[in-house]
Amino acid sequence: MNTAKATVLENFNAPLATRDYPLPQPEPGAALVRTEMAGICGTDVHLWKGELPIALPVILGHETVGHIEQLGPGLDKDWSGQPLTIGDRVTWTSATSCGKCYYCAEKKQPTRCPNRRAYGIGYRCDEPPHFLGGYAEFHYLQPGVNVFKLPDDLPTESVIGAGCALITAIHGVERTGIQWRDTVVVQGAGPVGISALAVAKTAGAAKTIVIGGPANRLEMARRFGADHTFDIAEIKTPKERIDIVRELTGGYGADAVLECVGSPPAVVEGMEMCRDGGRYLVLGHYCNAGPVSFNPHVITRKQLHVIGSWSSEPRHMKGAIEFLRSTHNQFPFRDMITHRFDLNHCNEALATTASWQCAKSVIIPRLARA
Amino acid sequence: MNTAKATVLENFNAPLATRDYPLPQPEPGAALVRTEMAGICGTDVHLWKGELPIALPVILGHETVGHIEQLGPGLDKDWSGQPLTIGDRVTWTSATSCGKCYYCAEKKQPTRCPNRRAYGIGYRCDEPPHFLGGYAEFHYLQPGVNVFKLPDDLPTESVIGAGCALITAIHGVERTGIQWRDTVVVQGAGPVGISALAVAKTAGAAKTIVIGGPANRLEMARRFGADHTFDIAEIKTPKERIDIVRELTGGYGADAVLECVGSPPAVVEGMEMCRDGGRYLVLGHYCNAGPVSFNPHVITRKQLHVIGSWSSEPRHMKGAIEFLRSTHNQFPFRDMITHRFDLNHCNEALATTASWQCAKSVIIPRLARA
Amino acid sequence: MNTAKATVLENFNAPLATRDYPLPQPEPGAALVRTEMAGICGTDVHLWKGELPIALPVILGHETVGHIEQLGPGLDKDWSGQPLTIGDRVTWTSATSCGKCYYCAEKKQPTRCPNRRAYGIGYRCDEPPHFLGGYAEFHYLQPGVNVFKLPDDLPTESVIGAGCALITAIHGVERTGIQWRDTVVVQGAGPVGISALAVAKTAGAAKTIVIGGPANRLEMARRFGADHTFDIAEIKTPKERIDIVRELTGGYGADAVLECVGSPPAVVEGMEMCRDGGRYLVLGHYCNAGPVSFNPHVITRKQLHVIGSWSSEPRHMKGAIEFLRSTHNQFPFRDMITHRFDLNHCNEALATTASWQCAKSVIIPRLARA
Amino acid sequence: MNTAKATVLENFNAPLATRDYPLPQPEPGAALVRTEMAGICGTDVHLWKGELPIALPVILGHETVGHIEQLGPGLDKDWSGQPLTIGDRVTWTSATSCGKCYYCAEKKQPTRCPNRRAYGIGYRCDEPPHFLGGYAEFHYLQPGVNVFKLPDDLPTESVIGAGCALITAIHGVERTGIQWRDTVVVQGAGPVGISALAVAKTAGAAKTIVIGGPANRLEMARRFGADHTFDIAEIKTPKERIDIVRELTGGYGADAVLECVGSPPAVVEGMEMCRDGGRYLVLGHYCNAGPVSFNPHVITRKQLHVIGSWSSEPRHMKGAIEFLRSTHNQFPFRDMITHRFDLNHCNEALATTASWQCAKSVIIPRLARA
Repeated sequence: MNTAKATVLENFNAPLATRDYPLPQPEPGAALVRTEMAGICGTDVHLWKGELPIALPVILGHETVGHIEQLGPGLDKDWSGQPLTIGDRVTWTSATSCGKCYYCAEKKQPTRCPNRRAYGIGYRCDEPPHFLGGYAEFHYLQPGVNVFKLPDDLPTESVIGAGCALITAIHGVERTGIQWRDTVVVQGAGPVGISALAVAKTAGAAKTIVIGGPANRLEMARRFGADHTFDIAEIKTPKERIDIVRELTGGYGADAVLECVGSPPAVVEGMEMCRDGGRYLVLGHYCNAGPVSFNPHVITRKQLHVIGSWSSEPRHMKGAIEFLRSTHNQFPFRDMITHRFDLNHCNEALATTASWQCAKSVIIPRLARA
Repeated sequence: MNTAKATVLENFNAPLATRDYPLPQPEPGAALVRTEMAGICGTDVHLWKGELPIALPVILGHETVGHIEQLGPGLDKDWSGQPLTIGDRVTWTSATSCGKCYYCAEKKQPTRCPNRRAYGIGYRCDEPPHFLGGYAEFHYLQPGVNVFKLPDDLPTESVIGAGCALITAIHGVERTGIQWRDTVVVQGAGPVGISALAVAKTAGAAKTIVIGGPANRLEMARRFGADHTFDIAEIKTPKERIDIVRELTGGYGADAVLECVGSPPAVVEGMEMCRDGGRYLVLGHYCNAGPVSFNPHVITRKQLHVIGSWSSEPRHMKGAIEFLRSTHNQFPFRDMITHRFDLNHCNEALATTASWQCAKSVIIPRLARA
Repeated sequence: MNTAKATVLENFNAPLATRDYPLPQPEPGAALVRTEMAGICGTDVHLWKGELPIALPVILGHETVGHIEQLGPGLDKDWSGQPLTIGDRVTWTSATSCGKCYYCAEKKQPTRCPNRRAYGIGYRCDEPPHFLGGYAEFHYLQPGVNVFKLPDDLPTESVIGAGCALITAIHGVERTGIQWRDTVVVQGAGPVGISALAVAKTAGAAKTIVIGGPANRLEMARRFGADHTFDIAEIKTPKERIDIVRELTGGYGADAVLECVGSPPAVVEGMEMCRDGGRYLVLGHYCNAGPVSFNPHVITRKQLHVIGSWSSEPRHMKGAIEFLRSTHNQFPFRDMITHRFDLNHCNEALATTASWQCAKSVIIPRLARA
Repeated sequence: MNTAKATVLENFNAPLATRDYPLPQPEPGAALVRTEMAGICGTDVHLWKGELPIALPVILGHETVGHIEQLGPGLDKDWSGQPLTIGDRVTWTSATSCGKCYYCAEKKQPTRCPNRRAYGIGYRCDEPPHFLGGYAEFHYLQPGVNVFKLPDDLPTESVIGAGCALITAIHGVERTGIQWRDTVVVQGAGPVGISALAVAKTAGAAKTIVIGGPANRLEMARRFGADHTFDIAEIKTPKERIDIVRELTGGYGADAVLECVGSPPAVVEGMEMCRDGGRYLVLGHYCNAGPVSFNPHVITRKQLHVIGSWSSEPRHMKGAIEFLRSTHNQFPFRDMITHRFDLNHCNEALATTASWQCAKSVIIPRLARA
């Protein structure tokens, strides 16, 4: 077992290539993990298209579960203090904050730590330790990584089905500050929107309204407990959608609106869906999708709180794991996974995600073909 | 004393006219006040130009101090519980919230009460009680008005020099939540900007940076204690101004940026002046100044809190009065008044404000000519 | 219909007497309501025993539902703006804040308004309008009362089963600020404790632990979804109970502990159940139950937030009504009512509550005997 | 230079002894500092008396400034990112949180990190590296220490005059959340009280009232800008002192009361000095001073927020340094130092602090005798 396979993004917009790299020996504090499942996130599609400035070649994949193959000296506990041993099933945060910089230590904004680099995004794979992305047989965990042992009663499919969307949503809803019995609108029914719905419902929301599409995603939103869902393919204009929200909120607008779309015009539309003094979360704009014509008067006049939230902290991952375990009946995140591929079919997997055909595609390196 | 004079906006963009109206007898809870001084707010210029949809004719003026001429039955105490008698020098909030509606009682956003109408803006003067604006010999205070007796050691010029800008700023800074030793940027050096500077400095700000113009306003900002002032006529591009703020903040941006300009591009520029995780107050957009090209990605990426604030509550007026009295040496609001006019020269007064020649113009109905 | 019956507390610790009083005609803004059901609160027992300083005679009862019999001029809408007509089933807040005082208007603490007097507690009944308490055939609603029309699909028994305990708990939990996925301990399994459990669970709590008794109340706590319940009759020492909480919380203590007991030693015990940096709500000490030996060092060392909360605001009542309607399957508040009495058996009703035999006793003036 | 002198607490309540220990060579990330000045904190007196459970022998002193003598490999920047070189004048936090535990990483309460040990308190000095306290010629800084280079225009006497009292107060006031124009009472005029006064005044407080003693400390409070000071030797009963506060606050009590005394009865007294809905900080109870008879009803009835705060974080030290530098004219912390001793007179220094004769005593190892 000297080398292992990885699927590599070598050129934007071109097929991923299969490569073999030598397996690293874990240094102190590090670990080698055998990949069980890697999620494909919408961001991977943006990366593949070259819409974010990254240095190639890269092994994509920042949502991963695996089993510990080797443990470096000193790595004997997970982030929560649980003992770690060979064979344990684990997940981890894709990025690690330094804990010492201006943003980490002084301003308590660790997700904005300039020293963060994300697995599956920010590391070239043509240098050791090579295996720093999910689309591969193995994943190397560097010293300092935030690793989480998974409880036995939490299926891997729940963890990957939730993916980075859930932890992103947990952080965003935390910053938004849902109040008890708030009426909440979620713009977008993709993984982030569905996650934000689940988190908002358990953070105090009473009435929930999801506006998005297509139909199968809205069906999933209803399974997750959305009280009202509206398909943007049917309710086609912002004005109509704003009117519907007002109608469902006594004419005032929602207490909180959570943007999980990533489309700039959705922000303009969503602010109008807030009641005066309401809260508006801009969560979906992880990527730069360009400008929109916007009138700042609305923020003053409606006395809004507009909140941004970037990525997540390890404590959100810990919360997510406990949440997934204890609410699996209410929120079937595992059913978000609709398509499974082995390592040789990563291109098909990416294409499926890119086409919005699925809720979620995953890579299973050892997938047994039926 | 059966009639009194008022200066009336009868047609947009046309000279104000002098009219005589019968003086009302105060009904229960009401009062008649003899105007001592009425401030001219930048909003009055917008109203005169017809930029806000109001029903004419109107007596302009929503920043007023006067002496009680008659008290209606039952009005024996001011908002703070102090006894009221004939002759007392008073001011009042221009608008009164109902205290019972969805916004007042349920959502605690009384400044967004739909039942508010503002003196000097929202009342026709061709109907009794006619005198519901400041540019007149008398002002009628309707039942329920929030009236404040002024302490003897607080000059009228301080109150009107501060005007509605100060209470607006107090509310805005309260919502923003300045932290102890924050670095604060104020965009704009007009009355609202100067007020926001004074409030921010006493709410915990350490380093303060004012960006605006013209030179005489920046000079006033320095008298109010601004650590750094920059003239937009000299530092001409947003990029240069953003760079200056970053340079003064260790490369990160300010903890809080307070927009007191009302120009949409200032909002785009100001968000970039915030550090990640910082706070951005949109305070200057009381009027609709139209849209701007804006990229919502900045809110997510920088993890911003963007806050709107509309008008003010009576408790802010009470705070303002105590603040003006106890800090007059530090913050010379009275010196904001640079031009004085009698009732016959209201058009000149408005023109002076419109030309930005002054810090503040006021109407003094009984002004003694030198 | 010139007079009606009321049950009157004339002397502390003595049987209530039945009296007839003339029915008042509603003045403007007032209403006369025919009592359908009046709840008996634990506070009523304290009042009956003379443990609170009130002026007798008094008609007890501050949790009431009835049907509008007469409407005074001008009272045409309920607190939420819904139209009111004769026959409507309504409830109301027992006390009304003035909206104008230092606490109402300046400090936003309306429950501490010094002008509040509570129906069923603070009004003598030997003066008109007499009917200002629940244990009577009719209830007079004074001008300014906060009245709420009840939705048809919300049974009266749910409203009275929840009683003032629920609105008190809503206010208390709001002030405490439960965070998403907090572990929450509720001290006490009486009406306030059960209500606090329900509110905490829907405000974000994950694991919930109820410590109280007797067994039937803990059974009710489990029906309301408590994850763990402990009977103080079985786990007899504070140390044991603190140890149990620590064991269930990884050794640290709970994120939030809600005191709903009213016993001073419970406060000392409860603070030790908090994790460091946790939140402790003192909600049960509506009455003065005397002092306890307490070491303030614990607040510094554990870096606690200790929060008091008094009574509730009308918006909490509105929230309660919507909450009861939409969560009746999850939280069977109607089943809290275990004993029903007619007006002639108010003494038995009080005695039942005093003996803690029941979850909740109620008065139904027209109760049909089986 | 193989050994250096230290003053050592070997037995409680016995004179400190002078000892020589071998000087350590800095390991990677560590440093050796030549002590310029070490402050004597009231806690040192408690430690000397054996009132806190520590393992002897110990070099006392947890407020220290010195010059870098040797730098271990890799320690090239201070906590704020400034370059470090031999000879730099520095200070540091006495304790270091681990950054990884439940309290550091999950609950964001790093001051409650169980892995903290404080210099001058928690380290035996009979083992290498020996020099982990301030009363010595040298101080060793272990890897991971939070070290701060001092600006040239900030005198050492300001830093030590402020001592750990200032950073404790900064943290405490931050948790309390002073609002703009709050009336604030400070209980206690010792170093923590004076510091809390300075921080509260710059965090938004308007009227400030200090209650303490003796006279010279109250004189210092007035120099720091206290609007009112009251001597507990003159105003002898809690009731009188509470009445005075109420009189100065319109009969209501203060918005915030900061306990900086450490005496349990002060807590009972102080809560009554708060207005309803006010905030009460328990900051002075770093040590266990035993219980007091306390009625929890006051917390419910007055709807209080009671806040504990323990120690401080490195960011508070950074804030303190900038604060001291920029406000030295307003807040003469350097004048807090009233007594200076060399290493041979540590016992006299401790005795002076213990007798409350001084504002602050310090150790200057190289003190030149006049």
